[in-house]
Amino acid sequence: MKLSRKDILGIKELGADEINLILDTAETFIEVSTREIKKLPTLRGRTIINLFLEASTRTRTSFEIAGKRLSADTINISSSTSSMVKGETLIDTARNLEAMNPDVIVIRHRSAGAPHLLARMVKQPVINAGDGAHEHPTQALLDMMTIRSKKGKMEGLKVAIVGDIAYSRVARSNIYGLRKMGAHVVIAGPATMLPRDIERMGVAVYCRLEEAIKGADIIMMLRIQTERQQQNIFPSLREYANYFCLNGENIKLAKEDVLVMHPGPINRGVEISPDVADGPYSVILDQVTNGVAVRMALLYLVTGGGQ
Amino acid sequence: MKLSRKDILGIKELGADEINLILDTAETFIEVSTREIKKLPTLRGRTIINLFLEASTRTRTSFEIAGKRLSADTINISSSTSSMVKGETLIDTARNLEAMNPDVIVIRHRSAGAPHLLARMVKQPVINAGDGAHEHPTQALLDMMTIRSKKGKMEGLKVAIVGDIAYSRVARSNIYGLRKMGAHVVIAGPATMLPRDIERMGVAVYCRLEEAIKGADIIMMLRIQTERQQQNIFPSLREYANYFCLNGENIKLAKEDVLVMHPGPINRGVEISPDVADGPYSVILDQVTNGVAVRMALLYLVTGGGQ
Amino acid sequence: MKLSRKDILGIKELGADEINLILDTAETFIEVSTREIKKLPTLRGRTIINLFLEASTRTRTSFEIAGKRLSADTINISSSTSSMVKGETLIDTARNLEAMNPDVIVIRHRSAGAPHLLARMVKQPVINAGDGAHEHPTQALLDMMTIRSKKGKMEGLKVAIVGDIAYSRVARSNIYGLRKMGAHVVIAGPATMLPRDIERMGVAVYCRLEEAIKGADIIMMLRIQTERQQQNIFPSLREYANYFCLNGENIKLAKEDVLVMHPGPINRGVEISPDVADGPYSVILDQVTNGVAVRMALLYLVTGGGQ
Repeated sequence: MKLSRKDILGIKELGADEINLILDTAETFIEVSTREIKKLPTLRGRTIINLFLEASTRTRTSFEIAGKRLSADTINISSSTSSMVKGETLIDTARNLEAMNPDVIVIRHRSAGAPHLLARMVKQPVINAGDGAHEHPTQALLDMMTIRSKKGKMEGLKVAIVGDIAYSRVARSNIYGLRKMGAHVVIAGPATMLPRDIERMGVAVYCRLEEAIKGADIIMMLRIQTERQQQNIFPSLREYANYFCLNGENIKLAKEDVLVMHPGPINRGVEISPDVADGPYSVILDQVTNGVAVRMALLYLVTGGGQ
Repeated sequence: MKLSRKDILGIKELGADEINLILDTAETFIEVSTREIKKLPTLRGRTIINLFLEASTRTRTSFEIAGKRLSADTINISSSTSSMVKGETLIDTARNLEAMNPDVIVIRHRSAGAPHLLARMVKQPVINAGDGAHEHPTQALLDMMTIRSKKGKMEGLKVAIVGDIAYSRVARSNIYGLRKMGAHVVIAGPATMLPRDIERMGVAVYCRLEEAIKGADIIMMLRIQTERQQQNIFPSLREYANYFCLNGENIKLAKEDVLVMHPGPINRGVEISPDVADGPYSVILDQVTNGVAVRMALLYLVTGGGQ
Repeated sequence: MKLSRKDILGIKELGADEINLILDTAETFIEVSTREIKKLPTLRGRTIINLFLEASTRTRTSFEIAGKRLSADTINISSSTSSMVKGETLIDTARNLEAMNPDVIVIRHRSAGAPHLLARMVKQPVINAGDGAHEHPTQALLDMMTIRSKKGKMEGLKVAIVGDIAYSRVARSNIYGLRKMGAHVVIAGPATMLPRDIERMGVAVYCRLEEAIKGADIIMMLRIQTERQQQNIFPSLREYANYFCLNGENIKLAKEDVLVMHPGPINRGVEISPDVADGPYSVILDQVTNGVAVRMALLYLVTGGGQ
């Protein structure tokens, strides 16, 4: 099977069959990264532009490694050095990049919808590496891959997503994806961090961590953006942690074989206590490993790969 | 034919035969960037250092892609991360880079003449990627390539260059090059933006856009450095645009098959109205595409390529 | 012979046989950088992460070139772009990098001991590219390589190290290494720049440059960190230079075939007068060339290379 779309902009528009195609493909790439020679000739002579207009190391590094392990040439453009973008609309940036004939453009942007605008402007495939508070599809795909590989399925699982839901593109992409794959999604967070009408996305909403994680198969803790504190979204990290930190005590409310996930970087002791982050339930590092494989799969599929 | 000089520092010192050699070579590389596998083994095992001590994304990206499509290893050094350069003279930087045995050094520097100093210090070929308000030879070469490929020649064409001439290394390099190739060059801009004695470069000078573009085959609009406004070089962007913005009206003064060029990034509505920038006369994106080919040609030629 | 340790964290823990192995291996790589095709397939498909959390161009460039000449994929992470590191402990950064399956992690960090912490956390080899005022083992190795190749030996040579000893990781690593290899090491610097109990490292200590360099085979001048002036470590650069600048006069106190070294970047006229820096005794650029070879050797050896 091949991907029938040009771009990967969000999970919202993907079908369950497409998600399965991506995860199946990613699984075939997992093994490559464990070899001594971690390289396939698949994308030799292709040019991948990593256009990161919002600071990122983790995701950019993951994409860069993914591209190189497929033998592609990778070009990094970051906001700090990007005079290209100053005094120039995203449209002009897009057209300029297009004129250099890249094969894929990966974009992270602080504004929701920027990748979609880019995708409409250029003929090349565009992959959204996170846009504002909107979507972060590659994160959700690596999360779903981690769940599927550990649990053998997603259908019927109870997944609790906890934290700053309103601001989280990770939460949004995961809710779309997990619901499509048949999971039961519940969310929890301080009232100021819950978007209105979130129930419409088909999730159950709780104000207390304990209620959300009760009987959960998966607990996904979101990162607190500490800069949001100044906006009076939450009183203090300590106060937040009192109510919403996953720890060795409250985790007992979840299933015995619960998986604990976090998109990173972790604020230890705020979202997750260190013993849980490093404990037996944690699959946080599997997420990182799967991230490289998912991004290899996407680069492969958007450039026409697949049978 | 091979290039008989070590460095590409400016258009001023190039002969018409050398310019033709570079453009002919660049044309053979255009096709590579349209292939699925955009890669030639030409510079495999060569090391190219992109030493960008003045912010740039566009030119650096173009050089990096050019190098990678020739299979070279490319090393980026930018001013933001460059402790090498702090407290060290350019001479010491040059000698240090030389000692690491690169094959080509590409340099952008805020000071006019810096590439020439570097070239005298090191045995490796040096390519000037823009030095202060002095020269930007690769930009002029891609501009000439664009004109030649669209018009079939440069000789006898009327080329109008409009804007901040005094401050523009793009203008200076193009005036040298186009004059050598037999074009008739006219310039226009506010009086504060015209260098004294510019007539000595063999160009006709006008104070009004309309006079300059009348009957022009090519209109080359220069980027306004908005930071120059604080120096009282021009009153306001709006005032500037009133007199010097190329738009759907005044462009009718030019030839019917006029080409509109801009080195980018464009300040839309200041130098060019959006309808003209995106309109049928615009070859702005051809310039970008040709930029990769011209840089591939230069990297190839300075490392000894050619028959 | 193969390296029997996982990491290269400091010279302190290396044996003379290990130092000789590294230098012997580096010598075999010197020739590669002088070829037209400067590339060996040795580390094809391996991923090297250059994690530079303290500004550096020189050392990062040297490591990047070394990796590429061995055909490895190199990934640069710098502190300026590193959101990964913000709000995240080094432990979490380490675990995340490990989960992406690199083959080597090269780290520079402002805190002494950071590379050791990283090395304990990850299964991959770690190379210390400079940690605080602690060690800079690759610099000492390239210095020893330069001495050995010029003098044919290290044993019995008098090596004078002059400058800000207390703050210098270069001095510390060289003292460990040169002493192990049988050299006689003397140091000199202003009293405020000499660490207490430095004699315990087996070196003779002088307060005057002239005493230290008398009869020296090697003079190693250290870089003055000009930002240290504000801490009242030294009165002024001029005052410092009056007493501790190596120049055409005082150098006559050394042996006739003395070698002058400096880790760079040089403050000309402060640590070394220009005529001496560029004069016949100077091997400063040999140090840079040897740096690439030493780093190729280390990357090769820590990934299991050697017979």
